[in-house]
Amino acid sequence: MTITDHADLARLTPREARERFRRGLLRPTSGISAGYAQANLIIVPRELAFDVLLFAQRNAKPCPVLGVLDAGETTGELLKDGDIRTDLPQYVVYENGRDIARPTDITEYWRDDLVTFMVGCSFTFEDALLNNGIRMAHNDQGVNVPMYRTNRRCEPAGSLSGPLVVSMRPVPASQVADAVRVTSRYPAVHGAPVHVGNPEELGIKDVNQPDFGDPVRIEPGHIPVFWACGVTPQAAVMESRPQYAISHAPGHMLITDAKDSDYQVP
Amino acid sequence: MTITDHADLARLTPREARERFRRGLLRPTSGISAGYAQANLIIVPRELAFDVLLFAQRNAKPCPVLGVLDAGETTGELLKDGDIRTDLPQYVVYENGRDIARPTDITEYWRDDLVTFMVGCSFTFEDALLNNGIRMAHNDQGVNVPMYRTNRRCEPAGSLSGPLVVSMRPVPASQVADAVRVTSRYPAVHGAPVHVGNPEELGIKDVNQPDFGDPVRIEPGHIPVFWACGVTPQAAVMESRPQYAISHAPGHMLITDAKDSDYQVP
Repeated sequence: MTITDHADLARLTPREARERFRRGLLRPTSGISAGYAQANLIIVPRELAFDVLLFAQRNAKPCPVLGVLDAGETTGELLKDGDIRTDLPQYVVYENGRDIARPTDITEYWRDDLVTFMVGCSFTFEDALLNNGIRMAHNDQGVNVPMYRTNRRCEPAGSLSGPLVVSMRPVPASQVADAVRVTSRYPAVHGAPVHVGNPEELGIKDVNQPDFGDPVRIEPGHIPVFWACGVTPQAAVMESRPQYAISHAPGHMLITDAKDSDYQVP
Repeated sequence: MTITDHADLARLTPREARERFRRGLLRPTSGISAGYAQANLIIVPRELAFDVLLFAQRNAKPCPVLGVLDAGETTGELLKDGDIRTDLPQYVVYENGRDIARPTDITEYWRDDLVTFMVGCSFTFEDALLNNGIRMAHNDQGVNVPMYRTNRRCEPAGSLSGPLVVSMRPVPASQVADAVRVTSRYPAVHGAPVHVGNPEELGIKDVNQPDFGDPVRIEPGHIPVFWACGVTPQAAVMESRPQYAISHAPGHMLITDAKDSDYQVP
């Protein structure tokens, strides 16, 4: 069976979606398995794990930790019967902060001392935005969401420091308040926007040249709205240059068995 | 100046309150510095720090981490110009899980490898409950809040495991819904109750014999309402017996410079 239609992808169960990725499907995960939470990955050797967890605790808005797999573990409650080494569409392997490979399977890069952090992703609240009549321009335009390094610094932790990374969605001016209201109910997956409007105030020189993902066209009357992004720990890895780390490829997330509504308050 | 009146204590700034404790004032902190967040302490050697932080992440309802001081650090943003070793009314020092001292100052127990975790406390939302007309029986009765080990197990992390600990406040039946509504807006300080009514379902045999704090009289028509409690990591230390750990004495919290409203959503 071939899946080409976005609506078909939206109906996959998380288990089915992970199976497709395991078999080689390569595409961003926005819109896949509607209603289920998605997660960023950051995988580091045990001796760096406390720094990563502390970095996440100190920068909870961009780095809300949804789950942690113990050293060497490759499956867990968020991906039942899954395998963290194969079940994402694409990964990035870092050595000393440099991107040395972008495989679709990290089995050959795996080590028994690796600790996996699953970090909340704004794709999780996109379904709630859609249900409130707010369209996702990146999906309508068939591209990955645009992500940017900002001029805001995260609070460092141990050996890790880096900039806040944000994702951007253009929203019609009349729906900005709704977008804030809806997403503020999901504090565990970045919550309310960190910035509404002028990209330059975040140090973004050209909104058409994102640091990760793809550019997205901003229609007249739409305002760029910026949410904290779970690529932030990855940017810290690139800047802080630990010996070894693995992440997801931006926009190519783990689709978890948790429901969006599990992270909704109140 | 002697303070005997509860209303006077409520008006102290956090800095003033910490100063009193530094000078030797010994009493539970419920009701002190109204409007400011309070925190549980758990202090462990660096090699246990990842397990504690992971335990907290996996059991975020009882263990919401508000801040972490790096190894050897004794002050931070939550207690500006304060000293974590002297500014709480009372501490408990544990060796191999056994309570070896209950000092009012831990300077002589301090080590440069100790990492301090500050964990959210339900005293933080008591002011919001009061503002909504819900009285605190333990304050009215002049005692510490009652806390209980339950039959619910926390998710273990590394070497740490233990039961969920809860605090209890009796609430008039007509105000239970309000108590839920108000506290659910404070997810970072335990949020909504974990249980309303029959203590036996939590494995609490005699509600008049709390494991920590004092018994509180339950007036006719009042329902016992149970919230997750930041003494939970301490109970894990008592059960898991790490070589060395220090905590606050239950009910004798760190009064932080953060406002209650900093932890309020949405």
